[in-house]
Amino acid sequence: MSEPRAATVKLVDESQATGRVAEIFADIKQTKRIDFVPHMWRALATNPTQLEVVWSSLKTLMHPEAVGREPRLDPRTREIIALAVSATNGCSYCVNSHTTALKKQGVDNETLGEIMAIVGLFNMTNSLADGYQIEPDILPPQE
Amino acid sequence: MSEPRAATVKLVDESQATGRVAEIFADIKQTKRIDFVPHMWRALATNPTQLEVVWSSLKTLMHPEAVGREPRLDPRTREIIALAVSATNGCSYCVNSHTTALKKQGVDNETLGEIMAIVGLFNMTNSLADGYQIEPDILPPQE
Amino acid sequence: MSEPRAATVKLVDESQATGRVAEIFADIKQTKRIDFVPHMWRALATNPTQLEVVWSSLKTLMHPEAVGREPRLDPRTREIIALAVSATNGCSYCVNSHTTALKKQGVDNETLGEIMAIVGLFNMTNSLADGYQIEPDILPPQE
Amino acid sequence: MSEPRAATVKLVDESQATGRVAEIFADIKQTKRIDFVPHMWRALATNPTQLEVVWSSLKTLMHPEAVGREPRLDPRTREIIALAVSATNGCSYCVNSHTTALKKQGVDNETLGEIMAIVGLFNMTNSLADGYQIEPDILPPQE
Amino acid sequence: MSEPRAATVKLVDESQATGRVAEIFADIKQTKRIDFVPHMWRALATNPTQLEVVWSSLKTLMHPEAVGREPRLDPRTREIIALAVSATNGCSYCVNSHTTALKKQGVDNETLGEIMAIVGLFNMTNSLADGYQIEPDILPPQE
Amino acid sequence: MSEPRAATVKLVDESQATGRVAEIFADIKQTKRIDFVPHMWRALATNPTQLEVVWSSLKTLMHPEAVGREPRLDPRTREIIALAVSATNGCSYCVNSHTTALKKQGVDNETLGEIMAIVGLFNMTNSLADGYQIEPDILPPQE
Repeated sequence: MSEPRAATVKLVDESQATGRVAEIFADIKQTKRIDFVPHMWRALATNPTQLEVVWSSLKTLMHPEAVGREPRLDPRTREIIALAVSATNGCSYCVNSHTTALKKQGVDNETLGEIMAIVGLFNMTNSLADGYQIEPDILPPQE
Repeated sequence: MSEPRAATVKLVDESQATGRVAEIFADIKQTKRIDFVPHMWRALATNPTQLEVVWSSLKTLMHPEAVGREPRLDPRTREIIALAVSATNGCSYCVNSHTTALKKQGVDNETLGEIMAIVGLFNMTNSLADGYQIEPDILPPQE
Repeated sequence: MSEPRAATVKLVDESQATGRVAEIFADIKQTKRIDFVPHMWRALATNPTQLEVVWSSLKTLMHPEAVGREPRLDPRTREIIALAVSATNGCSYCVNSHTTALKKQGVDNETLGEIMAIVGLFNMTNSLADGYQIEPDILPPQE
Repeated sequence: MSEPRAATVKLVDESQATGRVAEIFADIKQTKRIDFVPHMWRALATNPTQLEVVWSSLKTLMHPEAVGREPRLDPRTREIIALAVSATNGCSYCVNSHTTALKKQGVDNETLGEIMAIVGLFNMTNSLADGYQIEPDILPPQE
Repeated sequence: MSEPRAATVKLVDESQATGRVAEIFADIKQTKRIDFVPHMWRALATNPTQLEVVWSSLKTLMHPEAVGREPRLDPRTREIIALAVSATNGCSYCVNSHTTALKKQGVDNETLGEIMAIVGLFNMTNSLADGYQIEPDILPPQE
Repeated sequence: MSEPRAATVKLVDESQATGRVAEIFADIKQTKRIDFVPHMWRALATNPTQLEVVWSSLKTLMHPEAVGREPRLDPRTREIIALAVSATNGCSYCVNSHTTALKKQGVDNETLGEIMAIVGLFNMTNSLADGYQIEPDILPPQE
């Protein structure tokens, strides 16, 4: 089956993955409970070390149950952070991916609108604070 | 009392504010339950329209109780978005301000660490997705 | 009539808008003297508060005549700022929208080239000043 | 006379500049009608090719009279673009430098406030358009 | 021959270029040893001064042999910097262009993966250092 | 000994570190051959999972010899990428840290100037390619 061109590198096909890459592909599908390997991971797999570093970081932070870690934030808050960062950076793949994840968690468009409005608000105030070089009022308590 | 230099404009002093600026300064203190006007608003006050636009947006989105609006997100989540955006943009004033706000809400440093780790993670994946020009897997359901 | 997929949310159709959203849609068309509601506003309308905050800010700052405000900058300069910000952020929708607006105002491609060259120049010097962590020479006079 | 540390490289002192660097330092002072060489150029001078490339670009675009070029934009608009880019990028040196330049041209704090408010507005809408992945409405006419 | 729409301006066609633009187009093809003028330069050519400034800067820094300059960095390292900057900024055209250039130089996908992994890593640590407002440990030696 | 305030969190002191944090602190000093723990790691240590994720990623990618990995890039090229990303993002801590590292490797200020000039050049062309929404000429070969 032909595949649409999708990146600056040829995505590693699941059927061709072997060794550590195949193991990580299996882990991604099981941990995320999906039946395919998303484009992102297939691109990263062109360098197995890269795949390992990024998956290991994401698994630890976004799937704490899979590593037996007690998280401080719930899954919805974690995805909201992901979307806030992605919208601020203007990353197309990431915005699509994290919006899909939030909708799967039951977030409706009106709630998404509140998230986005707040993202927009602070992109505005960030450029103003930087544009005026405003000094902090009070520093946060360190402990 | 002399005041440390704090911006590219002379901050409007509370004692000198009149008219609409004085009203907004009072509203800021009352809405935020603080007894001083933060540097940010004193800088924006050099142009009253600017002060009005930014304060009105922030009050509506971050202080929904003050405008009789039913929010979709709780105050902690709203501040987490603010910090995620500010860390991504590297805005010094904003990082200090929103970290202070989160700590006031009882967020401890370990929870802050989980927020920041997730912010860092997605700044990493954003640059990778953009750096490989990865195409979306599936688009989010629109409704 | 079917519509091409255009965002991570289903755009609110003009024919389906009611209440405050319908009023704002009408205001957008009248204020901007256009006969359709641009995609941006139809996406924001998925959360009426978001639509209101963004439209109210943009109307006040970019259409001062509609709110009886005396602006300090002329319409062309305002759109040039919008394009400079959008090119710096790499926002595709925004670059298209503000370039269209400038061309409607009679800005030709050679003038656009001078705008863009200056945008490029300062993106270069910004990364150099940050990359060397250069300290300010003299601070601007505050008054 | 000792000098405060001001960058990650030792700034080239005017008294020590020779050859092409000395010529460019003289040209900077004459073209900008100032009696000192700003930190930026003294840092770039650690690599004469770098100094030449950046100064030559900036002189051509920001001092058209010095190269006998007919500009499309007036000096104030050019500096406004510089400030809009610098505030968006959060470049401290650049914000200070371009705000100083605008004030020298007679721009007062209220006008500066209108510039900054518009910069803030479009940083907000940029993150929203990217955060929703909104498609262009109409492409700008190319000619 | 019709041409796909490719920018917010009509690209200057090689067959229509005259004077300085034609000379620069010829120089681009000869210096880069290619038989067509890339879209980027055809867009910049809508303003000949812009074309001259950008080409002159790029030729000096990226094609030192063409200007008789002794470079400090080899061609591969120079393109790696270009890709690192482009991935960080999320510039689609630039990521495609510099990835193509690296592959022409013989960089394989596994090496590209190491480059990208390091780009991703430092986008992560950058947001963390900014997000915690961490002070420098030791400043670099200036000389 | 008192310590200057250095972040939005109280840095974890080496003498107070226990368990996994103490182990990682020791590993950082040994791997990097330094006799103190840099501020960055002491800030991240406020959340041990965060410390582990970031250190593990950085150790794997930047200290391949410590994990028995055969790198594709040499240490200087890896640090150049780090500096290019940090200058582009304007991260103060990171610019200082990676400039120091490059100087330790023997990179002089003139070579640093060539690195920075190229970083500046591509921040310029990135904003131009995005600002004109230029389409790729040819896509890179995928294999």
